[in-house]
Amino acid sequence: MTKRVYNFYAGPATLPLKVLEQAKEEFLDFADTGMSVLEISHRSKQWDKAMSEATNLVRELMNVSDEYKILWLGGGASTQFYMTPLNLQVKGKPMEYVNTGGWSTKAIKEAEHFGEVKVIASSEADKFTYIPEDVKFSEDIAFAHITSNNTLYGTEWGYTPSVPKDVPLVCDMSSNIMDKPINVSDYGVIYAGAQKNLGPAGVTLVIVREDLLDRVPQHAPTMMKWKTHAEKDSMFNTPPVFPIYICKLSLEYLKEIGGTKEMEKRNLEKAKILYDVIDGSDGFYKGHARLGSRSLMNVTFTMATPELEQKCVEGGTARGLVGLKGHRSVGGMRASIYNAMPLEGVKKLAEYLNEFKDENQ
Amino acid sequence: MTKRVYNFYAGPATLPLKVLEQAKEEFLDFADTGMSVLEISHRSKQWDKAMSEATNLVRELMNVSDEYKILWLGGGASTQFYMTPLNLQVKGKPMEYVNTGGWSTKAIKEAEHFGEVKVIASSEADKFTYIPEDVKFSEDIAFAHITSNNTLYGTEWGYTPSVPKDVPLVCDMSSNIMDKPINVSDYGVIYAGAQKNLGPAGVTLVIVREDLLDRVPQHAPTMMKWKTHAEKDSMFNTPPVFPIYICKLSLEYLKEIGGTKEMEKRNLEKAKILYDVIDGSDGFYKGHARLGSRSLMNVTFTMATPELEQKCVEGGTARGLVGLKGHRSVGGMRASIYNAMPLEGVKKLAEYLNEFKDENQ
Repeated sequence: MTKRVYNFYAGPATLPLKVLEQAKEEFLDFADTGMSVLEISHRSKQWDKAMSEATNLVRELMNVSDEYKILWLGGGASTQFYMTPLNLQVKGKPMEYVNTGGWSTKAIKEAEHFGEVKVIASSEADKFTYIPEDVKFSEDIAFAHITSNNTLYGTEWGYTPSVPKDVPLVCDMSSNIMDKPINVSDYGVIYAGAQKNLGPAGVTLVIVREDLLDRVPQHAPTMMKWKTHAEKDSMFNTPPVFPIYICKLSLEYLKEIGGTKEMEKRNLEKAKILYDVIDGSDGFYKGHARLGSRSLMNVTFTMATPELEQKCVEGGTARGLVGLKGHRSVGGMRASIYNAMPLEGVKKLAEYLNEFKDENQ
Repeated sequence: MTKRVYNFYAGPATLPLKVLEQAKEEFLDFADTGMSVLEISHRSKQWDKAMSEATNLVRELMNVSDEYKILWLGGGASTQFYMTPLNLQVKGKPMEYVNTGGWSTKAIKEAEHFGEVKVIASSEADKFTYIPEDVKFSEDIAFAHITSNNTLYGTEWGYTPSVPKDVPLVCDMSSNIMDKPINVSDYGVIYAGAQKNLGPAGVTLVIVREDLLDRVPQHAPTMMKWKTHAEKDSMFNTPPVFPIYICKLSLEYLKEIGGTKEMEKRNLEKAKILYDVIDGSDGFYKGHARLGSRSLMNVTFTMATPELEQKCVEGGTARGLVGLKGHRSVGGMRASIYNAMPLEGVKKLAEYLNEFKDENQ
């Protein structure tokens, strides 16, 4: 077996080793059923228990009140880009979005199929290097939409924008869900593809306030309605069983280490180590995100030339520090240090970056 | 560890033990990457290779010509119930469906959101006990739709209905894909949720003739268009990596044992064993499906009373023969004997059913 590497890819991303080992251990026999979790009927009592546990862990770890439904859906956050406007549209009312990166841009594009979209703030003109401040959403809109962390550009909202009363705030939290405590009651809807901070690819978590479920047009296809899935506890159709199972193990692990409060402490420590390397490099490494907008999850930076960046990526790979190349639309380098990235991996990367600078500056 | 049971659930369903063992073996280290397949970036060359191999195996095992695109999508067959009419609609032309069971009924309901649907044949009045014969689709329709195997009722099409020239035949093959050789060129589109005959829950295989990709309305949301996924080799968004990986292993296994031809032989043998028990039971077991419409995949039968059926289900469970209860909408009993159910499991079930009859008649 190859030595385990430190995986800095932006998603699918690293998972806690303990979770993987547990899944491997019980891979052929789930909950004493004599079958793999890959084979178990989603209508069995053992699966029903596991899925309820996963849901309850989300509720507990994020302190989600009973006013909200928790859904596990297939199709990725990209599917939520159209399900959101489909489910929340209100005739004659515009939808307001803040554009903070590639994923916001895609979400906006899909919303345009359903009605008038207003982009009320954007950092696009400055290469998405920051999160706009003092964002003000209008009265009388269908909903307000933000992307809380921007994987491509390495920016993260440091505050929750206020919204007028009766306007639901919708947030794509795919790349930073549970990286710190948040107040769920500030939001109408939260959605997150699992493959960055929760589990593997193939499932999307949707947390939706129950009173919003009735807005959807009656004649929309059944699978597109959050209401369909809410009424059947995400079992209207066969859910993506195995991805949900891994999320459950990963949430158990998060609970065990102390929840989102402890996670925030760890994430702050990890991010500081890398940003300190960048800030102390006399410009050898140049951070992409502005100071106040830096992400705890994706540390993005550039160097003097693409050749130097390439050399740094390759040197990292040779040491077992993989996935450091920046997104093709941004260039440069990116270290994704999600919840499951251990402190040790970040320390090794910092050490390497310091050495690389000494050898190449 | 509990002894491995024989899993007769209708889906998610049993998988080849060899596939599970291989997945377990390489669970922490996929393709010498030093990470789990759960963690690997879908943009990595190792994943790209695995996904291409999965696609090529479908092409090879089903003898799919280059005229067709092969897609791996999230969301289940239920999502295809609306994606099909959305992608294939033609203004002013009706869509024709044959209703052979619960899943056809659901597919029809979703199509009605997109235009006029004509149900040109149905076995509903006779409790879906048969597949209509001599089905004739009309000229000048958008498409023709059938469900090749009916999980709930245990019926399977024994022939491929002919369609007028230029009318694409669409088939939901979720519960019998690759149970025998078929002629893909008879179809415009084939779709199949993986969790019965291909792999675990969480991914849906779609095989679509390339000339049909351009019918979709330009302004449909991006994720709803087959064309989007076809153009990006199912990597427009993050695909459900792990479910696809298990499908790949399962397809490798199918190839190794001799492909769909050998599989048909085995399936015929397995099904005959159970139908012989039913037919030789002097009415103790009563087959639900009519003789000419019997499924190779789902053997459905009833007994004199629900109490007797319940006793039989419980006795089976005690012997490690699990999942024998019929679907709640049909009642009775059902043994799902998909591709991955070993002959040994079917023999054990037959033995049990014979004993149960002797003891209870």
